[in-house]
Amino acid sequence: MRIFLCAVVLFALSSSVVAQAKGGYSQYVNPLIGTRRMGHTYPGATVPFGSVQLSPDTDEQPHNIGGKYNPETYRYCAGYQYDDTEIVGFSHTHFSGTGHSDLGDFLVMPTVGPLQMEPGKKGDPKSGFRSAFSHANETAEAGYYKVRLDDDNILAEVTATTRAGFHQYTFPASDDAHIVLDLMHGIYNYDDKNVWTYVRVVNDHTVVGFRQTNGWARTRIVYFAMEFSKPFSTYGFKEFAKQDYKGFWRKFGDQSKNFPEMAGKQLRAHFDFKTAASEKIKIKFALSPVSTDGAVSNLRSEIPNWDFEKVRNDARAGWDRELGKIAVTADSRDDLTNFYTAMYHAFLSPTVYMDTDGRYKGVDQNIHTAKGFTNYTTFSLWDTYRALHPLLNIIQPTRNRDMVRSMMAHQEQSPEHMLPVWSHYANENWCMIGYHSTSVVADAIATGNLTGPEANKALDAAVQTAKTGYYDGLEYYMKLGYVPEDKNSSSVSKTLEYAYDDWAIAQAAKKLGRNAIYTEFLKRSENWKNVYDPTVGFMRPKDSSGKFLAKFDPLKTEGQGFIEGNAWNYSLYVPHDVDGMIASMGGRGTFSQHLDQLFSMHLPDEFFAETEDITRDGIIGGYIHGNEPAHHVAYLYDWTSDRWKTQERVRMILDHQYKAAPDGLGGNDDCGQMSAWYIFSALGFYPVAPSSGRYMLGSPAVKTAVLKLENGKTLTIEARGQGQKNVYVSKVILNGQELSRDFLTYSDIASGGRLVFQMTDKHL
Amino acid sequence: MRIFLCAVVLFALSSSVVAQAKGGYSQYVNPLIGTRRMGHTYPGATVPFGSVQLSPDTDEQPHNIGGKYNPETYRYCAGYQYDDTEIVGFSHTHFSGTGHSDLGDFLVMPTVGPLQMEPGKKGDPKSGFRSAFSHANETAEAGYYKVRLDDDNILAEVTATTRAGFHQYTFPASDDAHIVLDLMHGIYNYDDKNVWTYVRVVNDHTVVGFRQTNGWARTRIVYFAMEFSKPFSTYGFKEFAKQDYKGFWRKFGDQSKNFPEMAGKQLRAHFDFKTAASEKIKIKFALSPVSTDGAVSNLRSEIPNWDFEKVRNDARAGWDRELGKIAVTADSRDDLTNFYTAMYHAFLSPTVYMDTDGRYKGVDQNIHTAKGFTNYTTFSLWDTYRALHPLLNIIQPTRNRDMVRSMMAHQEQSPEHMLPVWSHYANENWCMIGYHSTSVVADAIATGNLTGPEANKALDAAVQTAKTGYYDGLEYYMKLGYVPEDKNSSSVSKTLEYAYDDWAIAQAAKKLGRNAIYTEFLKRSENWKNVYDPTVGFMRPKDSSGKFLAKFDPLKTEGQGFIEGNAWNYSLYVPHDVDGMIASMGGRGTFSQHLDQLFSMHLPDEFFAETEDITRDGIIGGYIHGNEPAHHVAYLYDWTSDRWKTQERVRMILDHQYKAAPDGLGGNDDCGQMSAWYIFSALGFYPVAPSSGRYMLGSPAVKTAVLKLENGKTLTIEARGQGQKNVYVSKVILNGQELSRDFLTYSDIASGGRLVFQMTDKHL
Repeated sequence: MRIFLCAVVLFALSSSVVAQAKGGYSQYVNPLIGTRRMGHTYPGATVPFGSVQLSPDTDEQPHNIGGKYNPETYRYCAGYQYDDTEIVGFSHTHFSGTGHSDLGDFLVMPTVGPLQMEPGKKGDPKSGFRSAFSHANETAEAGYYKVRLDDDNILAEVTATTRAGFHQYTFPASDDAHIVLDLMHGIYNYDDKNVWTYVRVVNDHTVVGFRQTNGWARTRIVYFAMEFSKPFSTYGFKEFAKQDYKGFWRKFGDQSKNFPEMAGKQLRAHFDFKTAASEKIKIKFALSPVSTDGAVSNLRSEIPNWDFEKVRNDARAGWDRELGKIAVTADSRDDLTNFYTAMYHAFLSPTVYMDTDGRYKGVDQNIHTAKGFTNYTTFSLWDTYRALHPLLNIIQPTRNRDMVRSMMAHQEQSPEHMLPVWSHYANENWCMIGYHSTSVVADAIATGNLTGPEANKALDAAVQTAKTGYYDGLEYYMKLGYVPEDKNSSSVSKTLEYAYDDWAIAQAAKKLGRNAIYTEFLKRSENWKNVYDPTVGFMRPKDSSGKFLAKFDPLKTEGQGFIEGNAWNYSLYVPHDVDGMIASMGGRGTFSQHLDQLFSMHLPDEFFAETEDITRDGIIGGYIHGNEPAHHVAYLYDWTSDRWKTQERVRMILDHQYKAAPDGLGGNDDCGQMSAWYIFSALGFYPVAPSSGRYMLGSPAVKTAVLKLENGKTLTIEARGQGQKNVYVSKVILNGQELSRDFLTYSDIASGGRLVFQMTDKHL
Repeated sequence: MRIFLCAVVLFALSSSVVAQAKGGYSQYVNPLIGTRRMGHTYPGATVPFGSVQLSPDTDEQPHNIGGKYNPETYRYCAGYQYDDTEIVGFSHTHFSGTGHSDLGDFLVMPTVGPLQMEPGKKGDPKSGFRSAFSHANETAEAGYYKVRLDDDNILAEVTATTRAGFHQYTFPASDDAHIVLDLMHGIYNYDDKNVWTYVRVVNDHTVVGFRQTNGWARTRIVYFAMEFSKPFSTYGFKEFAKQDYKGFWRKFGDQSKNFPEMAGKQLRAHFDFKTAASEKIKIKFALSPVSTDGAVSNLRSEIPNWDFEKVRNDARAGWDRELGKIAVTADSRDDLTNFYTAMYHAFLSPTVYMDTDGRYKGVDQNIHTAKGFTNYTTFSLWDTYRALHPLLNIIQPTRNRDMVRSMMAHQEQSPEHMLPVWSHYANENWCMIGYHSTSVVADAIATGNLTGPEANKALDAAVQTAKTGYYDGLEYYMKLGYVPEDKNSSSVSKTLEYAYDDWAIAQAAKKLGRNAIYTEFLKRSENWKNVYDPTVGFMRPKDSSGKFLAKFDPLKTEGQGFIEGNAWNYSLYVPHDVDGMIASMGGRGTFSQHLDQLFSMHLPDEFFAETEDITRDGIIGGYIHGNEPAHHVAYLYDWTSDRWKTQERVRMILDHQYKAAPDGLGGNDDCGQMSAWYIFSALGFYPVAPSSGRYMLGSPAVKTAVLKLENGKTLTIEARGQGQKNVYVSKVILNGQELSRDFLTYSDIASGGRLVFQMTDKHL
């Protein structure tokens, strides 16, 4: 009680910046963070977990040029690069922070003057419908984006609801104003990516259609409905692909003008207007995974009127509501910006994937109805099982439970009978490794957020997934206890991650009293030992005869049995048996020094280049924060006698790897995983092994934080004596009792109360 | 009453062949009729108006070779040519008698021995999975087809329900038996016709998927579910198209074997078995316009068991029931074969296009539910408005009404807001000319088969259709009163047919008391006069300045303002104002001589070749029966004082143009139009102007016929004194009263009763 009063006094006297509901938490969100270099975030408008991400694309790089991979593609995973000076248009679907991509559906661009049906060349905005812009005329907020398109002096504003984008273009006076709808445009556009597109002009202000692609998602189709606030006077299409067969459509003569139906592989449409000075033309643009009828219905139910400001305000209010689930105070506005932008990024995906009536397309390509849950898609699980889902399991348990239900539906519909690996838009894209859905499922079960028959069914789905022999070396793993490098590359990474996932399954089985599964998978979780080579002190690839590969360089990634991380980073991936790992690596002291070496070493450029996904800023010594495999590593000091080093490293990473600037992310945000790391670490704890129910203590960066839990309870965190130099924690007091352990439990958090970190500038 | 008794005596004494229910009418059906040369019928298994037409394809000709049209394509409109000696496999969808094509979905072929995944080359059956066969080992019946596949000594049998095919393959003993599923195969296959295909192996005996094409139908997708009676031991796929992007699927390594999911543009799958001698492997194969789930559901509800004979018997019983709607006696078995095969062909399409739950894909590409009607597709209306729909309007009024309802749904869903022109599988293909749905609609309204608000709505849809300015010269037609050849080719054909269609709309408007529409469209129906050139006595193309084109040859078709018929044939197309036409052509006598000249002239080969769709057998003099534009012409003598010539010509056409042999059709059957001509004419009357409610009298070819009407009434037709030479009708007695008019009314037929033709060998 005393503590509480004291805290109130502290709050009142504090010079810290208080984030509060009054101005709304959205004021601390800067969607431009991560848009420069490798963050791969997008600056446009979306609502929490929204299906629509309506955002400017600054270029469209083909995936291949002359049949070869175009490395520039990678920079445009989210369509926008901060250093670009032109906007091609506004498309409706974007991943946030991914390191491979897809989407960019339905690019819309307003223009005036002679109609241009090509985007034009980069650097020459007059060569097409693209336009120059400058950041001086750009505003990006949670749920709202505005920019002046300099070429034609058009003010573009966009906002969104869950399933619809809302455009508002303020035109100059013109007899020749256009809105281009580009169905060719896309992100990661292969030569042949568009499988089919279809457009139907329903009347002089309504257009529907779909785009079907073959890319990261092999069989993907997105439907749209588009409504204009003002009838277009004329309209037309252009087909940019050769059509083998035009058939009897030729009887209509020229169908490129005012003909209400068009289908083909490479279509662009235009809608023409006369505009008065400062006239606003608005467009509602809804998506559906089911049909154009579904899109029309989504559009009508989510944006019934033409009140752009209302939709914008609603979007912002929605963000304020979600962001407010954690109310923090911090030392600087930048810290708040980093925190709430991380929250914003963490709440972008998975995205809602169903019509307002609950219907969605399943991975079996059939239409299903989500009964009793909200269906989600965009599961970047190799990334997000680490911290994002554990975070959602705390602060968004209903959503996280529905995400698990979405994964279970996926498993039921899956031809391979597997939980998702990396899934989006009714497709499994199989990206990266492991079967980390099992961890998300297990975390929900182990923490009691998924219970009863449903939990048992989810466990069965996880077991089924983990026994899918033909999946990525799993047959060998099950037979030999490891993935042999001669049979399947990146074999060590796979072995380590399978072992962790198996342990997670065991935890869920334990919780549910399914002892046979528990025993079987606990045994499997020890498989990490099979790839540890004590002679070198690293995990190391073995061949199928059981021999370690002779050639081995722990600094290198490529060809060394790892993926997106070298042995220095990846060898530490035994989150479920850190004690065992430390023992095998020579004990606590040696291990602590090993970690020190990682954080202080120099990673030569030649090896760094292979780690992918990160900029030079994304590493500290040899520790690679810009990619996921080592995200738990700073917390491993907690298992040594040097826990202060966890505290120091975490604060260093928070300081160095996250900045309140467009280049503020040192690597891909990866659908919120990088941001979830920030949120946990800034609060003072981190789930090293999800489904353990344990959150290892670090060093909070906030001054205070109030977690408003769905169960009505609140957990108040206070970093007493917080300061730039006070990165060490002298003691932790939970509800008035000093904590004798180095972790919180899920129950500690869920029960609410008060958690005080006593901060100091001296480590023990 | 006396007449009736007399007739009974006559029947008993007659030597005529009596078609009766006892053996079943199906015994007179020979599905091979029309499979040689230009009939374009298929011999396989289907049920009346069934969605599935499971039939052998004897070759697969690509539409283009080296980028150029391959004229051989045309011969394979129905997949089967009688003179071929090999079968490539059995595919599930076929048009009957069309002169352009599509479909051929999901080819299935059983083989033994080393797996062959290519069909192989024509003439070399060992080069692929195709097999030699001979007609000696072939049986084609209504609802059943059997053939021995000689290469591997496999007996293939197929039958069908409305939405499912049922295969039964009797194998030799083999350790290496296969069933190939070819998703590349198709009819009228353009290089790029397959847009996407998808296959999912659900378990060891169930496979689902879809094929999406861009061809005659621009955006077509057909879903399937396939169930084997015996689990396959192994299975695999092959993708024959280059795939730009394989993505992370590579982690599965070789997916060509026992991997449950495949998608791409050019797929073939195989399923492998060990078979004992004479072991039967059966396959149920259902289609759906909605989804693979829909196909599974159709499969389960239509073929719940593995009883092939039951399904075969049910199919035949279904045919017996439908064929029995007209019970005829005739002089020869061939006449019965011709009659009932014509009935069979007339009852093949339009085809049911919805799942058992009533759901179907609309032309707007959305899924709709047919409420209160059966939804149909495959509307070859330029052909079938003439006689097929009028026939159905008499003998299948419920189906014909539902076909009208299907057209109305199409119009509601149509981006162009038009009733169908030529539609199939949720697509409008726009083939041929006119807007003849309006005639089908008007016929149903004018005869009282469509009434009330629904009739008014249908009339509105017809008017909307007829006022679609951008449709095929219609804007000019509405402005100038004719289609000008310099603006739109085949302008005379279009003008004439629009004029007739307009008259049909007027008849419906009259029936419904919609006087403004009646007046407007009756006026439009006079537009035929605008293309009649009295100086040459033919219809003749005009340019937009109102001048007839100088160059004109009434024997030629190409470039003369006509399509699929020259001026000699097409100029007679004023079915709704024959008196007016005769008057303008110089009166009855002159007109009769004009017709004589047509039937006796010689059409030089060079001009004949241009008329398309027919063999030399398809013409009589210059009269072209093998194509539709002149189908009413033999009946035009009814308007002269030489009605006997109608009688003579009709009997001559019945004799010469229809034979009980594979080459029995002189031209494309055109979805039953050629056959419907036969049925009407064999019964003694023909609808020269549908929606007039009049059926012009000819000369019956049957001895007796009993039409069993849906209203419970029967019309008994008796050709008293019928014989080979007795082709003339001395009098017609309806219900005991001699008929003083040269036509029957719809009411005469629908009221039932007795119609006696007194036949004689001398004309008046």
